[in-house]
Amino acid sequence: MNKLTKDTKILIIGLGVIGGGYAKALTYSGYRHVRCITKNASDIDYALTHGIIECGSTEPDAELIADSELIVFALYPTVFIDWIKKYRHLLKSGTVITDVTGIKGGIVYEIQQLLGEDIEFISAHPMAGREKSGVEYSSAEVFRGANYIVVPTERNTEAAIAICESLGEALGFARVTRLTVDEHDRMIAFLSQLTHCIAVTLMNSNTEPGLEKYTGDSFRDLTRIAKINDLMWSELFLLNKDALVSEMDAFTEKFVQLRNMIANSDQEAIRSEMRSATSRRELFDKPKNN
Amino acid sequence: MNKLTKDTKILIIGLGVIGGGYAKALTYSGYRHVRCITKNASDIDYALTHGIIECGSTEPDAELIADSELIVFALYPTVFIDWIKKYRHLLKSGTVITDVTGIKGGIVYEIQQLLGEDIEFISAHPMAGREKSGVEYSSAEVFRGANYIVVPTERNTEAAIAICESLGEALGFARVTRLTVDEHDRMIAFLSQLTHCIAVTLMNSNTEPGLEKYTGDSFRDLTRIAKINDLMWSELFLLNKDALVSEMDAFTEKFVQLRNMIANSDQEAIRSEMRSATSRRELFDKPKNN
Repeated sequence: MNKLTKDTKILIIGLGVIGGGYAKALTYSGYRHVRCITKNASDIDYALTHGIIECGSTEPDAELIADSELIVFALYPTVFIDWIKKYRHLLKSGTVITDVTGIKGGIVYEIQQLLGEDIEFISAHPMAGREKSGVEYSSAEVFRGANYIVVPTERNTEAAIAICESLGEALGFARVTRLTVDEHDRMIAFLSQLTHCIAVTLMNSNTEPGLEKYTGDSFRDLTRIAKINDLMWSELFLLNKDALVSEMDAFTEKFVQLRNMIANSDQEAIRSEMRSATSRRELFDKPKNN
Repeated sequence: MNKLTKDTKILIIGLGVIGGGYAKALTYSGYRHVRCITKNASDIDYALTHGIIECGSTEPDAELIADSELIVFALYPTVFIDWIKKYRHLLKSGTVITDVTGIKGGIVYEIQQLLGEDIEFISAHPMAGREKSGVEYSSAEVFRGANYIVVPTERNTEAAIAICESLGEALGFARVTRLTVDEHDRMIAFLSQLTHCIAVTLMNSNTEPGLEKYTGDSFRDLTRIAKINDLMWSELFLLNKDALVSEMDAFTEKFVQLRNMIANSDQEAIRSEMRSATSRRELFDKPKNN
């Protein structure tokens, strides 16, 4: 196998908002053997009722695991590592493993080490999410227009990378690309983790009563992501600590520079910062066709 | 006069995106004598063609100014102050003056001082805007659902305050409220100016090529306002320097605290910050009926 077919046996472990989105996207596009293992029976009931899985179990069912060609772990990072430590003996030689974890350096090498030589873990990051949790909020639509990033290490084979890329295509992502672990983690520290740190700080730095009566869309936009799953995001922050702290320091340095330009009434310097920002922001506009 | 009527003679000075919105909102709701003074003849042509003014001039026309009961200054802050210095002799005793300026302490006292006793300046801030400039992008719709803030000083009379409040209502704002100069400027420093400083800094703090290929909606939301009119906003920042620098310092302090929690792997402290942010953010949700 170096590409998924509609008959590939795919097991999703963790049927939450992302795992559920995978089950929907794959089933809707004709994959016949999408199975799941997830801890709540009610999530399996939901998935069976909605016809998005072939079968499921609330336990790490040895037979289901052994009968899988591709296993997708859609768990919180530390739960994923614990699962592998506890149940790796159930994984059949030759099975390809992938994931949906939002950081890479903090987990990929450890998982690859734990799995040894005969089970290949090829890591991936579907850059799409929702602010709510749970399979009932999952959607296949969130992947359209989004990026699917495959993050190989030197231990990965081209065959497993190709399978992982074909999963991204099967899920309906607009772009499937590759990054190294370091590139991925620096990118995510800046574009995603830093922005969440800023939103959280904004909500906590001025708590004067009544401000909400005067808020406009700018403040709402900057703090939308301050509604945050504290367990998952604190894990992601800590597993990517070095890259995140470095982006936070770079931001603080630039921010304090701007603060000093304002304190010194250096209008020309302020205007020059604003013009760079305005011109660079154009690069980040949404493509018109999305 | 202590309330606008459909026959009140209203002169808008500066027909840009906000002044133009005022002309549209007032004319559409039946005000018969909306006039303007603005420097480009093409903007007057636009306004006449679209039927949103009764008449207009590109010069500080003495007759038009003397024939006004209410004058709305919709100019950049420093241009507003310069105009008053140069042309205040054209203002007729008893005329009520208002404005749309985004900061107050830096202009209100100076303008009131310049105008003396017989011409009353009652300041106001329509909290609605667009990212584009020019009368052709103006809209009466942006005021619906938004806040109109009247900012009186001890020199203002209840009669002028009432006229200014009735202007906010005539324009279609959802809420017309009063704040003191200090309350207004601290609120705006936090909710609006600080958020623009953050967006500008985010665009300039990591300029690695290619990042735009991976961006998602969070980063786009946090930097939408980084496309900024550098002349106007640098003026607004400098005229509200003390309040803004103080909000920037408070933000930096909280941000560095979070940075240190992450550097020290203090997961419980991080989660507690996230939970406060999540719960406080709910206050800022858009009311369902807007």
